Amino acid sequence: MKATIERANLLRCLSHVQSVVERRNTIPILSNVLIEADGDSSLKVMATDLDLQVVEHMDANVESPGSITVSAHLLFDIARKLPEGSQVSLETADNRMAVKAGRSRFSLPTLPRDDFPVIVEGDLPTSFEVPARTLADLIDRTRFAISTEETRYYLNGIFLHVSDEDQPVLKAAATDGHRLARFTLPRPAGAEGMPDVIVPRKAVAELRKLLEEAMDGNVQIDLSASKIRFTLGGEGGVVLTSKLIDGTFPDYSRVIPTGNDKLLKVDPKSFFEGVDRVATIATEKTRAVKMGLDTDKVTLTVTSPDNGVASEELSAEYRSEGFEIGFNAGYLKDILNQIDSDTVEIHLADAGAPTLIRKDENAPALYVLMPMRV
Amino acid sequence: MKATIERANLLRCLSHVQSVVERRNTIPILSNVLIEADGDSSLKVMATDLDLQVVEHMDANVESPGSITVSAHLLFDIARKLPEGSQVSLETADNRMAVKAGRSRFSLPTLPRDDFPVIVEGDLPTSFEVPARTLADLIDRTRFAISTEETRYYLNGIFLHVSDEDQPVLKAAATDGHRLARFTLPRPAGAEGMPDVIVPRKAVAELRKLLEEAMDGNVQIDLSASKIRFTLGGEGGVVLTSKLIDGTFPDYSRVIPTGNDKLLKVDPKSFFEGVDRVATIATEKTRAVKMGLDTDKVTLTVTSPDNGVASEELSAEYRSEGFEIGFNAGYLKDILNQIDSDTVEIHLADAGAPTLIRKDENAPALYVLMPMRV
Repeated sequence: MKATIERANLLRCLSHVQSVVERRNTIPILSNVLIEADGDSSLKVMATDLDLQVVEHMDANVESPGSITVSAHLLFDIARKLPEGSQVSLETADNRMAVKAGRSRFSLPTLPRDDFPVIVEGDLPTSFEVPARTLADLIDRTRFAISTEETRYYLNGIFLHVSDEDQPVLKAAATDGHRLARFTLPRPAGAEGMPDVIVPRKAVAELRKLLEEAMDGNVQIDLSASKIRFTLGGEGGVVLTSKLIDGTFPDYSRVIPTGNDKLLKVDPKSFFEGVDRVATIATEKTRAVKMGLDTDKVTLTVTSPDNGVASEELSAEYRSEGFEIGFNAGYLKDILNQIDSDTVEIHLADAGAPTLIRKDENAPALYVLMPMRV
Repeated sequence: MKATIERANLLRCLSHVQSVVERRNTIPILSNVLIEADGDSSLKVMATDLDLQVVEHMDANVESPGSITVSAHLLFDIARKLPEGSQVSLETADNRMAVKAGRSRFSLPTLPRDDFPVIVEGDLPTSFEVPARTLADLIDRTRFAISTEETRYYLNGIFLHVSDEDQPVLKAAATDGHRLARFTLPRPAGAEGMPDVIVPRKAVAELRKLLEEAMDGNVQIDLSASKIRFTLGGEGGVVLTSKLIDGTFPDYSRVIPTGNDKLLKVDPKSFFEGVDRVATIATEKTRAVKMGLDTDKVTLTVTSPDNGVASEELSAEYRSEGFEIGFNAGYLKDILNQIDSDTVEIHLADAGAPTLIRKDENAPALYVLMPMRV
């Protein structure tokens, strides 16, 4: 293989694939990226961690075809340090890849292309498209609630499923047992009859990064019960394929309260800042913030045995009977952070019941937060 | 004590003192900052770690005098989160300090003023002034070479001493045994006869931060053989007092080569970038970069058993006989990073001898780097 690439192209492409590659690998070839010169004007670049693979094409001047694998982080670091505007030549010979640019020369160890593991996608019978912006929104509104508890592996991702309500919808949900985030969109054409799937946390994170550079188009999604493939930027774009989590997501709809009769309306930004301020004195042991509700007023209080007491009053719209309820300050802030509006609706029942939080009834995103004893 | 302070003043002042306070302390009062209302228009704020103390005054509206100590990090975090433009009221009562701003209220635990440890400065017979910019320069050019080996405690700081050469000078030096940095300035009036002192690393770091906001004036330095005091911003400014390291700095002048007869002149920026590029393939075990010197040319090479070979050619001015010498790539980069010029002079003897690096013979800073076997 011999090819020449603009440094900017090489760098952009490697920045997409290199974060898939773990820094430490027991299997040496998993540290490598596969580079394949199959046409005469582009290179295919591929990285994998066995659960997730990313494939991208980059413009190049190919002099002779071939394919090779080389350390992803090393090649990325080299590309990063080469001067802007460099032309980078890649050439394989004698189990080495020579990288040349300007007066710099690198001879890097390689591993054979045939040892590189490829995820077998199999048949992906469900296919539909979603605007990249909507997909980014779906991820942003739900990923913070993904569980990090490895023992509850079936919660370590975003659950996607279709459902028929007033109209057919596609729903995304994530929960860690303390809070739940759900995002709903009209069911895209082609998604009908799709299996319920759980997309793992790392695939979600990599996809979100790729979306950042492809916000204007649509994303093609193809899936089966065990694999999902995201194609960004159409033909010649980036393709991310991931295994799905093999588990059963709990029936989360039972957790979403429907009869909460006490409605608090408040400015989410002031609320966030107030919670953030009083939580200054919270410690690892005492992360709860107490909300005291009175007519058109909320009083936030944190009491810490080590650090004293903090309180703050907020104006709000509240007409039901007064009571007190506690929440994990961090979880409450995570949710308030999602609300891009002047008002957030907080639907409460009592100090022990799950609380529903949303921008309004038409918002695609909905949050449920479990209270804490205070 | 009762006083009102603008939030911006409180925040700026606490940001200066809070980094002196260690995050974890076995002695509770060392987590606290001392706040003292002694006049009617300012508060004195003081922090210490027993080796280093910082005292600052801030404008305030004092309603009743008094003094108290309260957690430095807690008060800093609160000030940080209060809305811009807030007026902050501090008031002590019943072993608590009440902090009020807008609709926020904090009641913080306190410890009595009398328990707060103050460094006894004793007599500081040597006094002189140095422009803040020169002092910042002195620190920037030498601190990177300070040793972090705790067993060689006498190298854990910057050594300051006066000396008579063609003219009287004040010299600052730091070394970790592998590299040496020295900065020379004309001896300030009043520094004659001063004892040799070693200013500890943490005092250097805190001083450098304080200098950032006081670049235009002079810094008053008062010292004895055991203590040093820096006064920034004149009357009512910031005062940093530090214990000095009780040890003997080695006679570093013997390490500075005087007979190195091979002179390499090169652009420090290209040199830095070249070293940085070839060092991409260096690993923890192999940090050496080999410099091959030929007439008007340097070839940089790194060889790694794991990552292959990298090399780069640089144009340079070199007229002596060719040879090869190796350096720790990180140490070489640290030094090249200091040279703000189009040319750096590298004075070499042979592959085993200390190498002298400087901008030119008039530059206040001079560096010595020990070679590595390659």
